[in-house]
Amino acid sequence: MKICVCVTARPSYSRLRSVLLALHAMPDVDLQLVVCASALLERYGSVVQQIEADGLPITERVWNVLEGETLETAARGTGVLLMDLASCFRRLRPDLVVANADRYEVLAVAQAARYSEIPLAHLQGGEVTGSIDDRVRDAITQLADVHLVSTARAAQRVLTMRYANLGRGVVITGCPSIDLCVGVEDEPPVTADELGGAGARMDLSGPFLALLLHPTTDTHAQSHAEAIAVLRGVQATGWPVVAFWPGNEAGADGVSKALRESQGWLHTVRNLAPRRFLRLLTQCQCLVGNSSVGIRECSYLGVPVVNVGGRQRGRERGPNVVDVGFVESDIYNAVTRQVAHGRYARWEGYGDGQAGQRVAETLVVVGRSAGQARATTERARVL
Amino acid sequence: MKICVCVTARPSYSRLRSVLLALHAMPDVDLQLVVCASALLERYGSVVQQIEADGLPITERVWNVLEGETLETAARGTGVLLMDLASCFRRLRPDLVVANADRYEVLAVAQAARYSEIPLAHLQGGEVTGSIDDRVRDAITQLADVHLVSTARAAQRVLTMRYANLGRGVVITGCPSIDLCVGVEDEPPVTADELGGAGARMDLSGPFLALLLHPTTDTHAQSHAEAIAVLRGVQATGWPVVAFWPGNEAGADGVSKALRESQGWLHTVRNLAPRRFLRLLTQCQCLVGNSSVGIRECSYLGVPVVNVGGRQRGRERGPNVVDVGFVESDIYNAVTRQVAHGRYARWEGYGDGQAGQRVAETLVVVGRSAGQARATTERARVL
Amino acid sequence: MKICVCVTARPSYSRLRSVLLALHAMPDVDLQLVVCASALLERYGSVVQQIEADGLPITERVWNVLEGETLETAARGTGVLLMDLASCFRRLRPDLVVANADRYEVLAVAQAARYSEIPLAHLQGGEVTGSIDDRVRDAITQLADVHLVSTARAAQRVLTMRYANLGRGVVITGCPSIDLCVGVEDEPPVTADELGGAGARMDLSGPFLALLLHPTTDTHAQSHAEAIAVLRGVQATGWPVVAFWPGNEAGADGVSKALRESQGWLHTVRNLAPRRFLRLLTQCQCLVGNSSVGIRECSYLGVPVVNVGGRQRGRERGPNVVDVGFVESDIYNAVTRQVAHGRYARWEGYGDGQAGQRVAETLVVVGRSAGQARATTERARVL
Amino acid sequence: MKICVCVTARPSYSRLRSVLLALHAMPDVDLQLVVCASALLERYGSVVQQIEADGLPITERVWNVLEGETLETAARGTGVLLMDLASCFRRLRPDLVVANADRYEVLAVAQAARYSEIPLAHLQGGEVTGSIDDRVRDAITQLADVHLVSTARAAQRVLTMRYANLGRGVVITGCPSIDLCVGVEDEPPVTADELGGAGARMDLSGPFLALLLHPTTDTHAQSHAEAIAVLRGVQATGWPVVAFWPGNEAGADGVSKALRESQGWLHTVRNLAPRRFLRLLTQCQCLVGNSSVGIRECSYLGVPVVNVGGRQRGRERGPNVVDVGFVESDIYNAVTRQVAHGRYARWEGYGDGQAGQRVAETLVVVGRSAGQARATTERARVL
Repeated sequence: MKICVCVTARPSYSRLRSVLLALHAMPDVDLQLVVCASALLERYGSVVQQIEADGLPITERVWNVLEGETLETAARGTGVLLMDLASCFRRLRPDLVVANADRYEVLAVAQAARYSEIPLAHLQGGEVTGSIDDRVRDAITQLADVHLVSTARAAQRVLTMRYANLGRGVVITGCPSIDLCVGVEDEPPVTADELGGAGARMDLSGPFLALLLHPTTDTHAQSHAEAIAVLRGVQATGWPVVAFWPGNEAGADGVSKALRESQGWLHTVRNLAPRRFLRLLTQCQCLVGNSSVGIRECSYLGVPVVNVGGRQRGRERGPNVVDVGFVESDIYNAVTRQVAHGRYARWEGYGDGQAGQRVAETLVVVGRSAGQARATTERARVL
Repeated sequence: MKICVCVTARPSYSRLRSVLLALHAMPDVDLQLVVCASALLERYGSVVQQIEADGLPITERVWNVLEGETLETAARGTGVLLMDLASCFRRLRPDLVVANADRYEVLAVAQAARYSEIPLAHLQGGEVTGSIDDRVRDAITQLADVHLVSTARAAQRVLTMRYANLGRGVVITGCPSIDLCVGVEDEPPVTADELGGAGARMDLSGPFLALLLHPTTDTHAQSHAEAIAVLRGVQATGWPVVAFWPGNEAGADGVSKALRESQGWLHTVRNLAPRRFLRLLTQCQCLVGNSSVGIRECSYLGVPVVNVGGRQRGRERGPNVVDVGFVESDIYNAVTRQVAHGRYARWEGYGDGQAGQRVAETLVVVGRSAGQARATTERARVL
Repeated sequence: MKICVCVTARPSYSRLRSVLLALHAMPDVDLQLVVCASALLERYGSVVQQIEADGLPITERVWNVLEGETLETAARGTGVLLMDLASCFRRLRPDLVVANADRYEVLAVAQAARYSEIPLAHLQGGEVTGSIDDRVRDAITQLADVHLVSTARAAQRVLTMRYANLGRGVVITGCPSIDLCVGVEDEPPVTADELGGAGARMDLSGPFLALLLHPTTDTHAQSHAEAIAVLRGVQATGWPVVAFWPGNEAGADGVSKALRESQGWLHTVRNLAPRRFLRLLTQCQCLVGNSSVGIRECSYLGVPVVNVGGRQRGRERGPNVVDVGFVESDIYNAVTRQVAHGRYARWEGYGDGQAGQRVAETLVVVGRSAGQARATTERARVL
Repeated sequence: MKICVCVTARPSYSRLRSVLLALHAMPDVDLQLVVCASALLERYGSVVQQIEADGLPITERVWNVLEGETLETAARGTGVLLMDLASCFRRLRPDLVVANADRYEVLAVAQAARYSEIPLAHLQGGEVTGSIDDRVRDAITQLADVHLVSTARAAQRVLTMRYANLGRGVVITGCPSIDLCVGVEDEPPVTADELGGAGARMDLSGPFLALLLHPTTDTHAQSHAEAIAVLRGVQATGWPVVAFWPGNEAGADGVSKALRESQGWLHTVRNLAPRRFLRLLTQCQCLVGNSSVGIRECSYLGVPVVNVGGRQRGRERGPNVVDVGFVESDIYNAVTRQVAHGRYARWEGYGDGQAGQRVAETLVVVGRSAGQARATTERARVL
């Protein structure tokens, strides 16, 4: 059975990794791994190298990101992706296409599969995060045949959206991104040498903060101002700070500009290998920003998080998260409080670390029944 | 206020016509009419000429249909449309984009607007027709800000899909396609000369059947066999038949082939002006096929309809429709029964013929509040 | 060695056929056959079926033709082709790409190869035909590394264009399209049944004319008027006429319209298998129109030709061709004269029927030396 | 008369600036300025801001650069540009399109105009530079109707390529890029503050070297190694160095990497306004690298230049240029010699500084005669 998974961004790979490894290990599965969009671009982290290091063969690569980082180029690049994936799926003839989560370009994955009449499985549907991502995620849900969701609440939302009578198509698997957290603290801590990067010097053996800030999609023009507020609030605490560059989105340039302007006092890092990144988070006193990592992985890892602004609005939270707005003093206070609290207990609301295997097994069942449905149709046509 | 409406196919224009005329007549509305996809192609009927005859200025044209009529080219052409509309919307800077119904390429309209952060109104959401169109229509609903729906049942479905708490964003306007039916019987009947076309001779002054058959999207390979079943059932009745060529879809070639093979005994027509088409329907004894015209417009006009197969599955029906499968004898029996019954009384379940004005007024209110929200944001940024 | 040949239209395949068969028969050549543009479209003749019947495996298919048949869609479709071929060449990694002749979309083949730094061989460069094709052909010549030309005059023109100092890169092979003519008269004649088609009845056992008219690219708006002139001149002779539909070009709709209007007295045919088409030409009294077949293949076959208008201007001619303008009476006179003359003797100015093998052998030598150059570079880099 | 000029890169604007200003000042010319490709991207210098500061209105913007900086993305992005320009030209209906020089994406400009049957003027054709640019430039020459060239040698080459009988279509105007040099030394010198940038501190009041290195297109994989050789040769001289980042090309990342690795001892600058850049060159002791600025503008300005490698091979040179290979010691020696020599006398081989006005006037004449030809055709059609 041919199962095609499209990886469109660095964080997507981290989330899909345990699923991909499980599928690759299955003898009767032909994994078709399509790497596209920012997952191919060096400046968003060498996902390709990670994939190759993980021993996964890349079946196809689609370069579709248009330079410019405007709303228009994001939409146009999605159009290019749709054009190419339609041809790619015709060549690969998968029995099942897997689309992941909610990035704007993933809708093109879903369209290409749906319009090509290939069964479509969607991972991480039914969640709520309070941004344009919600719209895209729900639109993908409407196009998908099968939904492998992280939580019961997500399952309920998918059922409601699809008018409740398709219980068979929704499976609660937990989130495979949590799988990456398993055993991460057994590894040696990240050192300053390993970290690399630019800006102020860092000593990771002492206490420090981690910062991971994305633009708030709906207000990209304000992204610079918002980043400045966060940076001032963090700077006021006096702790050393490791900041990561934002991903490939409208508004990212505003955040990047604010980071560049702060390189005198903070340390900037382009990226780490995913598990090393999680290891680093377990070392920091507190993660500040608006990444879903703070809500999902950090709840399992027990890392204190200050989540800023509305990007993760509506997402289910564990006890480790404190929410604040883009207000310098609030950010300062929240970070101080979280540092004082220290590590939290594990919370398994997003998964128990075994989701990858569970997702892979579900996909095989789904792909097989889709294949049988197709075979039945073909036989019926002959009769 | 700039309101941008995208017309992507001949039937779309018929449905949007009263809305467009109402918007064009409003002094404070700058109507931006974007004609794209098969609406630009001569072989699907000269929509452009109709638009110009209606006195509506065309703001932009986007040629995006890829030849081949395969699933792949349909998906690829949608990608091209998304690429171009993203640029088009940047140039036109509309305050509101209007997407209509459920054709696969309309999802590109919705994406281009949503990704460009332009408020999006969707017409005819919330309906159920039992094909891939349902998926696309519901995906567009997820991307839209405001929903102008035809029926109360459609409104309820949209609210459910969008989790019930956005009552303000759903307005029941009735379907503007019904507006075109108003007074159609006051016009002179269509004559054989006006009809034109090819194949067997037609005398429209006597009784005849009309046939309008589209491929069933999910089984396009079977479209030829299905068309043959319908044609044999119809031929058996012995009535003269006027058949219309199918639209631009995967599988259309199968239907067209069956029609070509039957040109010895039936009369084929490429298209008529929309109101003349409706006038012709009021002249026929029965409409056979699977067009939504049979369900919607014919319920208002009281034309007997034999609806074949699942293409309109789930759509609300008036009393004028008899449903059958692709079975020659069933089709024969149903047509005979409908011809015997004769005309039905008007049914206003899809609208009272005034929807266009109602939709236009709603769009203006929506566009204005969207504009105000934007102005407020801009003021806030300055402060 | 991997040699990639792109077929973009039905006539291109006819011309490349003997080359492709020769390459496919070579044990050390991996022929990569990419079928794209109108070569994939049923309404321009089922090239794909011919290719499969010839036992050639198709490596890749690219659907890029945009519907509309306007100048804009021709250009846009070429852009789509360039996008796709760039990815295609990256996947296929050919040692050599072969571009053929002068159709507007072939420039995209040349660009994709050149920009991808893959050696590019161009067939049929250096000719002169008096239309936009000249510009495109010469632009391709500028991008190509090696030129396999039909005649000595073509070789001289290529050398001049490329400033004379690259004699090694130009090889006179003759035109492979002539290969298809070899032995064609040994086959049974085409009958009316085999011919099929529509319009007036045909009896191919008696004398008849053949008509093959393309739009004159630079004056596409006039194509209908020009076709009418030709049709009237031909009709005046009183001979039965077999007309072929024009290919996929701006202006083709004007010619097609004129043909449709004449179906009362002429017989129209969509296409024949290439060799059957040539066989038919040997049966007719005279070929009328502006196809290059009249200049090239018919000179070898000795078929009398009346060549109308400037489309073939500048092309070398054998004794079998009479040139006239789009003037009804001139066309009438020329046809009458040619019918009276009867068959001509063979003229081998475009080739002796063995070009395919010669081209294939040259491509292998070229590909090998290109591969060696690359290997040398790679070794040099290591040192 | 509507004259459409496409600017595709920062250096293109510098070269076209005097032409654009002259066209904009002409009362009967409607200048349509289309900004596309890397000219829109901030990281290649804010061309848009320069254009706006020059008071030129931008008619259209086309984002087409695909991220990745591979050979494939360069080709694909050219395909996107062709798609969009075809539509752009249909909307703008220019009487004349102007394509400039030889960048790979400019071929799309030429194709879009040629395929749309719009007269095409080409600037800076007929030159020789010894890279893939030669192929692209010559291909554009084949597509163009009129050629406005810089030198008599270039005119001769264009005539030869186009078979000598079209003398009327070739006009020697001189190169408009030289116009930008006029009076540049009357402006105040560039200071370290104005320069900005990163890396080692610079004092521009003392002697220093300027470095502007692009990847050698045909050997992009070696670009890093080549850049290292140049940097070592320059570093050995002991002079302070101001280095500019390379433009948007395959291989640019290799050069950028080498520059980043050298930021300990050299100063890097993203860009300067064009005339300030030229002013800076008049301040330096010697320009090192492989930019055409060294060959063209510096010959007029009399700046000593060490030109490295084959990128400018074949380009006509003034006395100010010394050529060397990518050999550290040769570069060291050449720079030392040029610094010892000091400034050269003005050389006007590329123009006298008045080309912009001359080009603009020629374009108007060309556009007018093209318009008349078209009007004549239209009248002829009516008759």
